[in-house]
Amino acid sequence: MNIIFSQRMDSLKASEIREILKVTSKPEIISFAGGLPAPELFPIKELKDISVKVLNESGSQALQYSTTEGFTPLRKQIASRMNRKFHTIIDFDNILITAGSQQALDLSGKLFLNKDDIVLCESPTYLAALSAFKAYEPKLLGVDTDNDGMIINKLEKTIQTNSNVKFMYVIPDFQNPTGRTWSVQRRKELVDIANRYHIPIIEDNPYGELRFDRNILPSIKSFDTKGLVIFVSTFSKTFCPGMRIGWIAADQKLIEKYVLLKQGADLHTSSISQREISKYIELYDFDEHIKKIINVYRERRNTILSAMQENFPAEVKFTRPQGGLFTWVELPLHINGKELLMHCLRDNVAFVPGEPFFPDRKVFNAIRLNYSNMPKDRIVLGIRRIANILHNIYNI
Amino acid sequence: MNIIFSQRMDSLKASEIREILKVTSKPEIISFAGGLPAPELFPIKELKDISVKVLNESGSQALQYSTTEGFTPLRKQIASRMNRKFHTIIDFDNILITAGSQQALDLSGKLFLNKDDIVLCESPTYLAALSAFKAYEPKLLGVDTDNDGMIINKLEKTIQTNSNVKFMYVIPDFQNPTGRTWSVQRRKELVDIANRYHIPIIEDNPYGELRFDRNILPSIKSFDTKGLVIFVSTFSKTFCPGMRIGWIAADQKLIEKYVLLKQGADLHTSSISQREISKYIELYDFDEHIKKIINVYRERRNTILSAMQENFPAEVKFTRPQGGLFTWVELPLHINGKELLMHCLRDNVAFVPGEPFFPDRKVFNAIRLNYSNMPKDRIVLGIRRIANILHNIYNI
Repeated sequence: MNIIFSQRMDSLKASEIREILKVTSKPEIISFAGGLPAPELFPIKELKDISVKVLNESGSQALQYSTTEGFTPLRKQIASRMNRKFHTIIDFDNILITAGSQQALDLSGKLFLNKDDIVLCESPTYLAALSAFKAYEPKLLGVDTDNDGMIINKLEKTIQTNSNVKFMYVIPDFQNPTGRTWSVQRRKELVDIANRYHIPIIEDNPYGELRFDRNILPSIKSFDTKGLVIFVSTFSKTFCPGMRIGWIAADQKLIEKYVLLKQGADLHTSSISQREISKYIELYDFDEHIKKIINVYRERRNTILSAMQENFPAEVKFTRPQGGLFTWVELPLHINGKELLMHCLRDNVAFVPGEPFFPDRKVFNAIRLNYSNMPKDRIVLGIRRIANILHNIYNI
Repeated sequence: MNIIFSQRMDSLKASEIREILKVTSKPEIISFAGGLPAPELFPIKELKDISVKVLNESGSQALQYSTTEGFTPLRKQIASRMNRKFHTIIDFDNILITAGSQQALDLSGKLFLNKDDIVLCESPTYLAALSAFKAYEPKLLGVDTDNDGMIINKLEKTIQTNSNVKFMYVIPDFQNPTGRTWSVQRRKELVDIANRYHIPIIEDNPYGELRFDRNILPSIKSFDTKGLVIFVSTFSKTFCPGMRIGWIAADQKLIEKYVLLKQGADLHTSSISQREISKYIELYDFDEHIKKIINVYRERRNTILSAMQENFPAEVKFTRPQGGLFTWVELPLHINGKELLMHCLRDNVAFVPGEPFFPDRKVFNAIRLNYSNMPKDRIVLGIRRIANILHNIYNI
């Protein structure tokens, strides 16, 4: 074959790490790798009830083509929930239902990016967002972050020295991969920057409701005064990822543009899955369900943090997430995360090296650990094995 | 707001006709407009059984993230079905599961097209394929067709006079919008052209199994000798569209590229819906189900053809589809399909004017009629109303 592909395919390569991690599906592997929710918390029993109810009550519509925008009752439920939880003031026509939040990211790239346009993002940031954007051939520029979020004067300098910044992409709550959370002050400052330079913000918020100890922080969207904040989220972490239901919440004029793109991309998201989630929210206590998830993940976070505290050498630093699924581990400079992974795999332990999360620089001495997907004893066992390898192979 | 979008947004406009047709959801409207399957044929009872079975047997996996390629048993079922029905020789790893065939078209645009590249397609062709491709800013060139498919020497001339033709897009069976079917001879000749000029063919085949009277014709893919034919299809017309499950069948090297793009676009297609369709094919008689659909659609096709024969003036020509969902009506040159639609809507009859189906020329005197979605009495009533308007307003 000698088929000529589009230029964008030159920048999209199969991830070497994804290939390595294909082994992690073996049952003997202790995997900190994926961003998988705990399957024992999926509402399987309730879904059996609901799927039959939806088919009984509205089977013909649930299985037919439907509107691109999404199922109106679900859009209403999402809007009212966002207003209650994330301090926004939006209505159902600010909501477009998408195939997970991944599609929301892809459509955002499609909506804004010409080749060589600039996307500003945290450094490190969510790996799969980078893949989604890369298909539109932008330049991805990382902005340095501290424990409170992007460092605003560095952000502003980057904007001033680059003419074609098309949007800023941030994950303010329990960020993937670092587990860090932006302060309220920094959120406001980001909106100020957006307003001043007229640059949209994409606020990716898949984990916001999974806050372990205090109230959910107001979203960046809640500080939006000029319709510049595009909030994207998903039911993947609060309900289940297998159905691929996410959404975009944005100014109506933007939603109209997104709808055009989504029509071309897949017509609409599954009618039946939208109705099922809507029915679940109607008939069951979604808040109570999320509380259950929080209780389990809080314990697992506590477990992984104490296991690391106890077993890792003092030179190894890690974040203490207040919610979400991940902690980020910084190794001494001479330890390469990918090399460490290869050693750990021989001991049946997997995780994701930090390198691919950086948009524009090479950082090798970090790894991302997921703690949501395994019972506590396996978390402890896995951390001990990593600690042993650090000790035995790297002498720290 | 003064947000700067990507250049592709300049060529994507909300369809005026889609806006007009929003009224067609009112129950009093007799609609020949959508491409909707008959909802009374959806396997609702079976799905109640199956959705509970899937949740009982594999709830945790069905609701979890899964691989981008798709659910292996379903990929195997599709491959073996294609080999049996469409004379192909493919295996499961030639299959990628997509969010309906619409996503397969979008990913194809993404895989092949740079700005100003050329796509060759039938003229007229499927409207939503044009929307999918347009997001990648190609030039869309129509190739004239007769009752047997594209006219091959016109196709060859177009290829010879254009250097950057990236793919040829065709719908060989019961084409949307014309209802026409390519002859076997023409299918072979198209593959010859593809081989000679090394240009991939996208064979869009959503209706192939819905052939009313004779055996299904061998697919274009079945004549593929160099891995240049990309076959895309869907369960939307044979099972239900609401779940959004389609697929791409292609050479493995091409599937790998599509997988990369799909990862960025939405990670994977609904795990649970894939398992449900797979379970349906396992437990029920899919061929028998399709026979039922064929019986209903055949009758409706007969109904619409005789109603047109009886009521339309002789100057109005229409196609006689051997399967699928659509017939194509050519009006006298002075009658504009969109204007006719406006008159018909006042009489509560809707259809799609032919104009937007043409990639690169203006043809106003045609309309597309769908016959799959309504009982026979309403079909007859609708055709009579159109005939009356032709008579009363246009004096034919």
